[in-house]
Amino acid sequence: MPTVKAERAARTRQKILLAAAEVFDEVGYERASVTRIVERAGLTLGALYFHFGSKQGLAEALMNAQPATIEPHLESSGLQRLVDITLVWADRMQRDPILRAGVRLAVEQGSHGMNDATSFEEWRALMRSHLDVARADGELRESVSPERVARFVVGACTGMQTYSHLTTKRADLMERVSDMWQLLLPGVAAEAVVHDIQTNPERIPVAEL
Amino acid sequence: MPTVKAERAARTRQKILLAAAEVFDEVGYERASVTRIVERAGLTLGALYFHFGSKQGLAEALMNAQPATIEPHLESSGLQRLVDITLVWADRMQRDPILRAGVRLAVEQGSHGMNDATSFEEWRALMRSHLDVARADGELRESVSPERVARFVVGACTGMQTYSHLTTKRADLMERVSDMWQLLLPGVAAEAVVHDIQTNPERIPVAEL
Repeated sequence: MPTVKAERAARTRQKILLAAAEVFDEVGYERASVTRIVERAGLTLGALYFHFGSKQGLAEALMNAQPATIEPHLESSGLQRLVDITLVWADRMQRDPILRAGVRLAVEQGSHGMNDATSFEEWRALMRSHLDVARADGELRESVSPERVARFVVGACTGMQTYSHLTTKRADLMERVSDMWQLLLPGVAAEAVVHDIQTNPERIPVAEL
Repeated sequence: MPTVKAERAARTRQKILLAAAEVFDEVGYERASVTRIVERAGLTLGALYFHFGSKQGLAEALMNAQPATIEPHLESSGLQRLVDITLVWADRMQRDPILRAGVRLAVEQGSHGMNDATSFEEWRALMRSHLDVARADGELRESVSPERVARFVVGACTGMQTYSHLTTKRADLMERVSDMWQLLLPGVAAEAVVHDIQTNPERIPVAEL
């Protein structure tokens, strides 16, 4: 059972993450100051350095918090689970500032001298695990490599959100993810299941939102 | 016929673009100074401001120079042309600093307060034009929308290069593009042509390189 102290530390950490996500979103990483972040959080610089070490440590924590935030409350497995994860992700990108900041920092990190593929590799491993289930269940075409599909979907989702952000502030991201699966499933899914996989954004229940 | 003066102006402009591409690549946009760029180019600040107005103007010129640099010297049309453009692009990303800087600035622009989708929309329009040819030639599946395929491919290529850059400095980008087409063609191409489209990186002749 977590102690009161541990719970308070976790809340403090989360407050700093949220404030940092908002400030990075408003002014970009380079111009975000740690002072502004702790003021927003109503905390001290000491708390920020205790939990994250530095502004870069904070950025790394945000980047690497992504996959953990996506757990669709849907009964699905294999290919359908993979589709559901990407749809929930697309929806959350519009309403979860911590997820949004994590993705944006991961994509833009080159411009602030970072080079950390961890969050991409974690997404790939998560997707790979569901594709391995799909393979075991006979859901994949024989010729398809779960590893290459996972790698491709992570890259494609990354770029779709960059493009969608610039044109519609991500309002069309779920539609783009749904389009991706409609284009991709005939080349990925076995004929027996290709028409069973649901790709419409409406399948994500309101409770997720 | 361009005058000697116009030719010199074009050469000066190109020298500044190349120097800026290199400096942005080394230190990122925020930390790149115009002084460093003109020193690298062996030119004056006056020349930079005359041609581009500002550092941001230079960044916009680099972002929007992308599609014009990709013209595969291959006899192909329709879907094969689209595949060829993406393969040549993937190859050039490793060796053309102006293209690389343009793509990187377009992806990372959010971190320096820019919000310009022009280069994405130009790529989309270019791809759309070849998909319209593909449709007219009966190369596309009935259910496929050329517009949505174009939009998806632009987003997917954007994200693949971000991910590939972080893990292999883009050494595997051509392989990733080839993978994309192998996954995507069954959902995009009509059955009559799906096995005729070549997606192997080796089809890009050495003369392109």
